[in-house]
Amino acid sequence: MSAWRLDRQLADDTHPVAQLLLSEVRLRDDSHHPWLVLVPRVAGAVELFDLSDGEQQSLVREIALAGRVLRDCFVPDKVNVGALGNLVPQLHVHVVARFRGDIAWPGPVWGHSAARPYTPEALVERINRLREALAST
Amino acid sequence: MSAWRLDRQLADDTHPVAQLLLSEVRLRDDSHHPWLVLVPRVAGAVELFDLSDGEQQSLVREIALAGRVLRDCFVPDKVNVGALGNLVPQLHVHVVARFRGDIAWPGPVWGHSAARPYTPEALVERINRLREALAST
Repeated sequence: MSAWRLDRQLADDTHPVAQLLLSEVRLRDDSHHPWLVLVPRVAGAVELFDLSDGEQQSLVREIALAGRVLRDCFVPDKVNVGALGNLVPQLHVHVVARFRGDIAWPGPVWGHSAARPYTPEALVERINRLREALAST
Repeated sequence: MSAWRLDRQLADDTHPVAQLLLSEVRLRDDSHHPWLVLVPRVAGAVELFDLSDGEQQSLVREIALAGRVLRDCFVPDKVNVGALGNLVPQLHVHVVARFRGDIAWPGPVWGHSAARPYTPEALVERINRLREALAST
């Protein structure tokens, strides 16, 4: 099997935040929502059940970590977790801070509205904040 | 903390299929999609990170099991996994078989369209099939 490489669409839609044991953590470039995307570095993985038991356990730990980081940084009303992959097959997991009154509430964020990119300054500030929180959580 | 009890809305929208180590497995009464809902029997849990490490590991195993069962029974184009909880806070995880051309494809199923209940015969057939697959997977 060839080496893992980040899907081109995921690379275009997100910015790198951190590398965890299994996953790349990336920030979706959509200032509507604090929105992380975890991408396990496992070549060919499309479904959760394509991962080994050990990889599944790493992934759930990393999803929980991402959720705690969003809670601590943004104090959302709810954290949403989703692995869809209908458009981008490479296995990736969305972890999104949701607020009553956000643009898609109470519906799902996926497919709701076009992304609103961060300004360069806001992007740097947000990524730095998330990196610090990931390192200390 | 009081004992775990299934949320009333989840009970109304779904039918019991099986009990796994951590979770109740239920079938959403919507014949648009083969759609399982896993509900961990953990009182007060709302977010994934409310679970202990051991419970998280059980849950990911059970999500993967549900996904394999849907794949084996229905041969979908993709399995979607989501834990939203914007409307029903009790922690629950959707595992849904998706097909190119299904009513919501490629968007998410949540919030897309009103449920289309199974006929009694179709419901019994589907639950029996899922029970057999869960027992043998």
